[in-house]
Amino acid sequence: MKNDNISGSVISRLPSYYHCVEELYQCNCVRVSSATLAQRLGYTASQIRQDFSCFGEFGLQGYGYNVKKLRYEIRDILGMNHPSTAILIGCGNLGQALLKNFNFPYGGFYMLAAFDVDVTKIGKQIGSVCIMDYKDMQKVIEEKLPDMAVLTVPQGEAAEIASTLADLGIRAIWNFTGAELHVEDKGVVVEQASLVDSLLTLGFRLNQA
Amino acid sequence: MKNDNISGSVISRLPSYYHCVEELYQCNCVRVSSATLAQRLGYTASQIRQDFSCFGEFGLQGYGYNVKKLRYEIRDILGMNHPSTAILIGCGNLGQALLKNFNFPYGGFYMLAAFDVDVTKIGKQIGSVCIMDYKDMQKVIEEKLPDMAVLTVPQGEAAEIASTLADLGIRAIWNFTGAELHVEDKGVVVEQASLVDSLLTLGFRLNQA
Repeated sequence: MKNDNISGSVISRLPSYYHCVEELYQCNCVRVSSATLAQRLGYTASQIRQDFSCFGEFGLQGYGYNVKKLRYEIRDILGMNHPSTAILIGCGNLGQALLKNFNFPYGGFYMLAAFDVDVTKIGKQIGSVCIMDYKDMQKVIEEKLPDMAVLTVPQGEAAEIASTLADLGIRAIWNFTGAELHVEDKGVVVEQASLVDSLLTLGFRLNQA
Repeated sequence: MKNDNISGSVISRLPSYYHCVEELYQCNCVRVSSATLAQRLGYTASQIRQDFSCFGEFGLQGYGYNVKKLRYEIRDILGMNHPSTAILIGCGNLGQALLKNFNFPYGGFYMLAAFDVDVTKIGKQIGSVCIMDYKDMQKVIEEKLPDMAVLTVPQGEAAEIASTLADLGIRAIWNFTGAELHVEDKGVVVEQASLVDSLLTLGFRLNQA
């Protein structure tokens, strides 16, 4: 499904919809009204109906939404019905923490390989992958054609590595480095990974408490 | 400023407003229209005006917003005009990555101390703090009265430590453990730190590309 004109605010609510509907689905809930979704999410029911209508009509007046169908549609919008693959570059503290603890499949991605230049790290098993030599990255990308690269290298090295990844056909970069990457003109989607929004929300709630 | 009835969707847009207005302020921009903000953020101008009106009137018809004043108000809403303090508990890969690389002050918090039980870590300088013995945590909290604790301990230990923190007067927990913490009834604000929303957004954009 392609939707070129989805507003930033609708996109920003998609993850909440995903979490909520996954939870309903795991609890064997069969149908849900926009009013119930509104209550769980803190949005208005009309906003939810309007958001969902951007992606096509999958609710019925007076019945609400079929959870299984809604889940399918939301996963489809998020590209999760065809799971994507990823590699990770830079196995420092953050890289290793992600490999060990982060639930990539829940986010729609399968981790294929991880790379570092540090010989003391190469060969170490972290989570589901074994750290490989950065020198072998090109070969692995050409063989396995991963969709996305998680970039957890030092900031100063980010731009050059991103450019290499773009030339090797990587279609998306999840950028933890804080560096500005200029690979969008090569058709690469770049998403800044940031925890600061979560901390800002905490600050807001602490200030209200 | 207290606003008891701010909807979840307005709160979810606050971080974007903060980043955008900080950037305008750093570039010495004096005033900005809701139309310009809308263009930068992907929201509609009327949504922005409506959101800002929840916090009081600080725009002028035909003039737009004074950037300095807008920044002050947004920082005030986020509790940043009175910076808060934090400690971090659990200096594994993720804890150390946060101490080394995460910009807590930009998020409105100053890091006072970090704790671990592992004697091989105690005494190590990471970022601006030196890892202290977890046994000394109570004393440090009683002396320095931090507002918030970053929880990066193993999941199985999270609930008990959260309960201890609540009893010691910690007012907020930034929870990286994935554990459900039941300390809200003790008046503690708990914010789940999650990168998955950023990854879901990446998946969406990759699917649209």
